[in-house]
Amino acid sequence: MVESASDEILRDAQNVDVAFLVVGDPFGATTHTDLVLRARELSIPISSIPNASIMSAIGATGLQLYNFGQTVSMVFFTDSWKPASFYDRIRENRSIGLHTLVLLDIKVKEQSLENMARGRKVYEPPRYMTVGQCAEQMLEIEGMKKEAGEGGVYNEESLAVGAARVGGRSEKFVSGTLKQLCEADEVLGEPLHSLVLLGRRTHELESDYVREFAVDKELWDRIWKRDYEGKQ
Amino acid sequence: MVESASDEILRDAQNVDVAFLVVGDPFGATTHTDLVLRARELSIPISSIPNASIMSAIGATGLQLYNFGQTVSMVFFTDSWKPASFYDRIRENRSIGLHTLVLLDIKVKEQSLENMARGRKVYEPPRYMTVGQCAEQMLEIEGMKKEAGEGGVYNEESLAVGAARVGGRSEKFVSGTLKQLCEADEVLGEPLHSLVLLGRRTHELESDYVREFAVDKELWDRIWKRDYEGKQ
Repeated sequence: MVESASDEILRDAQNVDVAFLVVGDPFGATTHTDLVLRARELSIPISSIPNASIMSAIGATGLQLYNFGQTVSMVFFTDSWKPASFYDRIRENRSIGLHTLVLLDIKVKEQSLENMARGRKVYEPPRYMTVGQCAEQMLEIEGMKKEAGEGGVYNEESLAVGAARVGGRSEKFVSGTLKQLCEADEVLGEPLHSLVLLGRRTHELESDYVREFAVDKELWDRIWKRDYEGKQ
Repeated sequence: MVESASDEILRDAQNVDVAFLVVGDPFGATTHTDLVLRARELSIPISSIPNASIMSAIGATGLQLYNFGQTVSMVFFTDSWKPASFYDRIRENRSIGLHTLVLLDIKVKEQSLENMARGRKVYEPPRYMTVGQCAEQMLEIEGMKKEAGEGGVYNEESLAVGAARVGGRSEKFVSGTLKQLCEADEVLGEPLHSLVLLGRRTHELESDYVREFAVDKELWDRIWKRDYEGKQ
């Protein structure tokens, strides 16, 4: 974990060159910005090399990067912990017609409560959230918000794209309604997954591109015409 | 130009492998999405490889990619042509507190009106918009909008970051007010330039990072405290 190891990473960095490799772009995570700030405090010069990132590679869905709003993260819900701050961010994006990229939770080096309580450094197998899990959690929150009179940001028929292993040789996209995406994990296959919720400002060219991946092209066209087309 | 050469690019692509190299991510531009759509129509299989892009590399400013709204483009104004659609997009981003990445115009293979009229294939030297030119055009439009009673999206004291040659060895950032950035071209140096206008939802960690590049740190701090800090 970078958070806890930054002292270790920066130790001796005044005297020797230290390289730090990350998955994706080095500035995709706040943690890495923090590492640079610490280096600055210690007067350690740094330089960074940009890399492909899901933030830009998601353009391979055919949705235009220009039309994305803020990116949100989705964490694994538990029975008692269902953080829903993503919902208000999606509301903001959708209020101005933009797409939302949803980045999905990754759990590595996770301890069970029992092992944690007993101080046993035994870790659970890694877990990667799937598009299906994400779509279900999104609809669960929509249901709760609706009951509280604060819903309506999206619904079961909102159009979205599920993406798996973007940039890899086995890259795979599935598009459809959020309800359809709840069942799309088998088609999408192995991790890592991401999801994009379409904004109403979707251009026709974008829809043409994305419908190619549709679970059901007829349903896609019907909802596209009803809820998106010409809704600039 | 890809637009006019796509038939040429795709000719024979059913029979031989054709590679198409671009600057940045292949899906950063609508044109490339269009090329894939044409390939699909001709049943030509394609695969793409993601790359670093200004859309994600701009994280090197220290501004969090999560906090960016839609990206806008700024073209070179002429006396009679000052397209201002970027202004409404920035208004939308700022209404929900987000940063805006402004991508700056590049003019290559440009013909003078005279040469075009005479059918002479003589091209002007390439032109790359600078951060200073962009900041000036932004303030010009703000002035016009204000006169029309539709202004107030940003002003001379709005905080922004100018970026030059992002990802290159001579990468350079300058932060300050839009007014200050009008004069920052000399410090920024050679092209390519980009500009980011800060949203009010800027996190303190982001400001800490960016103020390091400030033309005038005291002024930065004063405006930060007055207009941004705690304005979530």
